[in-house]
Amino acid sequence: MKTLKIIKIGGNIIDNDDALQEFLNAFARITGPKILVHGGGKLATRLAQKMKVEVNMIDGRRVTDAGTLDIITMVYAGKINKNVVAQLQANNCNAIGFSGADGNTIVSNKRLVKNIDYGFVGDVKEVNTEILVLLLNNAITPVFCAITHDENGQLLNTNADTIASELAIGLSTVFKTELYYCFEKNGVLEHVEDDDSVIENINTATYKTLVENKVIFEGMLPKLNNCFHAIHHHVQKVCIGKSDMLFNAKNKHTTITK
Amino acid sequence: MKTLKIIKIGGNIIDNDDALQEFLNAFARITGPKILVHGGGKLATRLAQKMKVEVNMIDGRRVTDAGTLDIITMVYAGKINKNVVAQLQANNCNAIGFSGADGNTIVSNKRLVKNIDYGFVGDVKEVNTEILVLLLNNAITPVFCAITHDENGQLLNTNADTIASELAIGLSTVFKTELYYCFEKNGVLEHVEDDDSVIENINTATYKTLVENKVIFEGMLPKLNNCFHAIHHHVQKVCIGKSDMLFNAKNKHTTITK
Repeated sequence: MKTLKIIKIGGNIIDNDDALQEFLNAFARITGPKILVHGGGKLATRLAQKMKVEVNMIDGRRVTDAGTLDIITMVYAGKINKNVVAQLQANNCNAIGFSGADGNTIVSNKRLVKNIDYGFVGDVKEVNTEILVLLLNNAITPVFCAITHDENGQLLNTNADTIASELAIGLSTVFKTELYYCFEKNGVLEHVEDDDSVIENINTATYKTLVENKVIFEGMLPKLNNCFHAIHHHVQKVCIGKSDMLFNAKNKHTTITK
Repeated sequence: MKTLKIIKIGGNIIDNDDALQEFLNAFARITGPKILVHGGGKLATRLAQKMKVEVNMIDGRRVTDAGTLDIITMVYAGKINKNVVAQLQANNCNAIGFSGADGNTIVSNKRLVKNIDYGFVGDVKEVNTEILVLLLNNAITPVFCAITHDENGQLLNTNADTIASELAIGLSTVFKTELYYCFEKNGVLEHVEDDDSVIENINTATYKTLVENKVIFEGMLPKLNNCFHAIHHHVQKVCIGKSDMLFNAKNKHTTITK
């Protein structure tokens, strides 16, 4: 089995033109099959303000009404995705941009309304890997934005971390998959303010303790749940840290193990 | 050689949700390899107005400054392209959205400034068909928006009619290609106000006469130049008319011959 790297980048790279260009230059030089998954950053919020579409947040999560879905589709699948693809091409990395609708690669269910109606938000139901395998075996690099579809013509806003982990799980039947979550910190931190206090390894048992002791909380919880979901479903390696971890073996980061 | 149909649709379908849905339902049922190319319609202009980006037209052609290119990328490659792909998936047509940057499929040169600076507008330099052939042979339908790139990281606004004809020419080494331009009229008209006055066949000689007699003028000239460029470069069949021509053999339309 060949190794496939699935790398997710977030707002700290997406929102900074220089950081994005530097990352893409380095990403393009990673050898072997690879997939890039990108979040949306602050651009969507800025466009919503310009267009006077109200940004509605509940518990820190964006509510995706029809107007917001349009904006997300324009920014994530249009502006960000196509510019990333064009920059990768300039670095001799033959990329193709994807939403989950493209190639029917990621099918989601619209989230059911319980207490809160999050609108057009999708929870991943299935990943179809046949076309991705075909492209990866032909030296193409898929670049995914955080949009999926329901197979009935509806696009759905979907968490980029989840897209990355589901791709890593889905493709683990064909590749030895490695999942890298890049964000603004060196990893999961013992002390949130101290970027040197990286916890280099977290397993299921130590994770439980870290949550109980409230070392891990808020936004890190869903990220780590995605990590453990992946490592328990045939993903070979899961890491969290600054994107430097990909290019410099000495760079501290957190590795998730069973 | 298998036959490949390349179908271009414009604003009269893109701007009308019902017309678009009806067209995509029918398009999905076309058997054999096919590619859809879509223009942008009026959405980009409307978004530019909402965002207070000035729309600058010279001789009826949009000048593409950086702000306008962003809007075009968001609307064409984002909103329109992804919704078209999702609707095709809902009709069991496995589509993947493309700009010319994706798969490095269409490379353009930024148009040189002579008298007028059209900004980020690209003239097609080359079409790379390898990935498209791979996908077409795996029952995937590429859906192209009217954006290309220069291989140096710059996206470029490119005429959708030209994209369709260049794809038809480029793929003619592998497929017997047929090119269909769908627009709001039944074809090239003898009398511009009379939709029944379709000129059913135009060849190089009669075209010359029609232009001299000013039966063909303005916006029809570049469209027909694309048609003749295609028919003189190994495209087997070139037709202009309402999209009905694709689904009903009796529907009048214009066929271009050498």
